[in-house]
Amino acid sequence: MDDTLLPGVLLLKIGVFDSGLGGLLIARSIIHELPDHDCLYLGDTARVPYGTRSKETIYTFTHQAVDYLFRHDCELIIVACNTASADALRRIQQEYLPTHYPDRRVLGVLIPAAEAAVEATAEEAVFGVLATQATVTSAAFVREITKLRPDAQIVQQAAPLLVPLIEMGGVKFARPIIDEYVAPLKTAGVSTLILGCTHYPVVRDMIQDAMGPEVRIVDQNDVVPGKLRDYLRRHPEIDGPIARTGRHVFQVTDFTHSAEAFARQLFPEGIELQTIPGLG
Amino acid sequence: MDDTLLPGVLLLKIGVFDSGLGGLLIARSIIHELPDHDCLYLGDTARVPYGTRSKETIYTFTHQAVDYLFRHDCELIIVACNTASADALRRIQQEYLPTHYPDRRVLGVLIPAAEAAVEATAEEAVFGVLATQATVTSAAFVREITKLRPDAQIVQQAAPLLVPLIEMGGVKFARPIIDEYVAPLKTAGVSTLILGCTHYPVVRDMIQDAMGPEVRIVDQNDVVPGKLRDYLRRHPEIDGPIARTGRHVFQVTDFTHSAEAFARQLFPEGIELQTIPGLG
Repeated sequence: MDDTLLPGVLLLKIGVFDSGLGGLLIARSIIHELPDHDCLYLGDTARVPYGTRSKETIYTFTHQAVDYLFRHDCELIIVACNTASADALRRIQQEYLPTHYPDRRVLGVLIPAAEAAVEATAEEAVFGVLATQATVTSAAFVREITKLRPDAQIVQQAAPLLVPLIEMGGVKFARPIIDEYVAPLKTAGVSTLILGCTHYPVVRDMIQDAMGPEVRIVDQNDVVPGKLRDYLRRHPEIDGPIARTGRHVFQVTDFTHSAEAFARQLFPEGIELQTIPGLG
Repeated sequence: MDDTLLPGVLLLKIGVFDSGLGGLLIARSIIHELPDHDCLYLGDTARVPYGTRSKETIYTFTHQAVDYLFRHDCELIIVACNTASADALRRIQQEYLPTHYPDRRVLGVLIPAAEAAVEATAEEAVFGVLATQATVTSAAFVREITKLRPDAQIVQQAAPLLVPLIEMGGVKFARPIIDEYVAPLKTAGVSTLILGCTHYPVVRDMIQDAMGPEVRIVDQNDVVPGKLRDYLRRHPEIDGPIARTGRHVFQVTDFTHSAEAFARQLFPEGIELQTIPGLG
C-alpha cells in the first residue's frame, strides 16, 4: 500500500514567491505550520516593488517566477505577493498551468484573507482593504469578498508609500502617512480591515492604533498557513511525493546589505539568502 | 566642404537614460539647451528604482539600456541616473564601448556636478553629497571631487526614501525625513551640497530650507546641459551626423497612470510616453 497518498502524510516541495522580502513573513508562518515540507522561497528583489507597475508587467514577472519554481520541482506554489495574486494568478491558473503542469498547483493569498474576513464579520458590516495601487486597481479583493457575501460594502485604499517605508528603514516616519491612508476607511465605518500587502504586518500595530481598537485586522500571516494545511488535506492528488527532508531554501534575484538586514529583522535566528540570476 | 563636421553645427541623436522618470528633468533641460538635436529618452520604469540594488544588477540593467539606445542609433548617451553613472558607467566606457561602438560616447552626470561644485566652492570648504544608497556606497562622487581637489573634505548621506516619496505623491511628508537626512551634513559644516540623484531637484526648495540659505545647492539640471554643449564643441569627431529633425521621443519599459501623472507634473505642456518591451 502506498501510504504517501494518504491525506496528511503527503510531503511536498512548496514554493513561496514574493516580489521582494515581505513574503518571508508568510514563508516563516508556513514553515512553522508545516515544518516537514520542503520550502523554496523566491524573492524577486532585482525588480521589487511590483505594486506600482502595470498589470501586464506584473503578469510577465510573476509568470517567470512561477515557471522558475516549477522548474525547481515545487509541486505547489504560494504566491505570497498580493499584487501578483491580484494581477497574475488567475491567468496563470487558467492559461499556463493546464498545459504545462496540470498536476501542480498555484495558490494566492487573497482568497484565504477574504474568507477569514467574511467568517469574522457580521452582516451589514463594512470591509476595508489596504493594499498597493495595483491591487486596489485590480479590485481583486472586492471580487473575492463579493463572491462570499454578495451585498458586502467594501472600501479600498491604496497605500503606495508603506512598502518603501518598511523596506528602507522609514517605519518611524510611517504614522502620519498611515493616518492619512486610513482616514477614508474610518470615515466609511470599516469594522474589518484586510492588510492586503505582504509587508503591512510589519506596521500592524500602528495601523491598529490608527484605526482604533474595535476594528478587526485580518493578517494573512495568521490565516494562510492554516488554510494551506486544510487545502493539502483536501487535495491529496497533487503531484509528488518525492522523499522530503524539511529543507528550507531562500533565494533572491539581487543581494544587497539592506535586503540582508531586512531579512534578519524577520528571522532574528538567522537566514541565508542565496542569490540567483535575474528571472527576465 | 562638409560643414556638418564644424563644431556647433554637428547634430546628433542624443540618448538620455534614467532608471525611471526623474531623468525627464535633465532631458527637458538638454532639449531646452540643444533643441535641434534629436533626443530619445529611455526610462526603465519596469525595474525602477535602481538605487537600492546591488552594483552587479545596476551594471546589468544599465548595460541593457545603453545597448538599446545605441541599437536605436543614438550617437551619444547621457546616463542621467546617478546610481547608474556611479556603478556602471566606467565599466561600460572601458569594456563595452571600445569593442562595440568605438565612435560613440556615453557620459554620466557625476563629473559635471563634481566640476560645478568644485568651481563654486572655496578651498577648505566642506562638500556634501545627498544620494541613493548605491551611489553613496560606490563613493563615486568622492572620487570625482578628489580628482579635482585632492584635499577636499566630503560628507556623503544616503537618502533612500526620497525617490519613493517623490514618485508616489509623498512630497508633503518629506520634510521631517529630509531634516533627518541633512542633520549629519549640517553638523559637518557642509557649504556646498550636491543633489546626487536625478529626483531630488523636485524637493530642492525643501532641502535648501533644511540646510539653510547660506548653503550652495548643486543641481545637475542647471549644470549638465551647458557641460554637454561644451563637450560637443570639443568633440566634433563623434559618429554621425545623419540629418536630424529635432525630434524628441520618450520611451518607458512599463506604463502606468501614476507614471503618466508624474511625467505630466514635469512637462505641464504635455508629453507622450511610448511603452516598449522590457530590456531584460
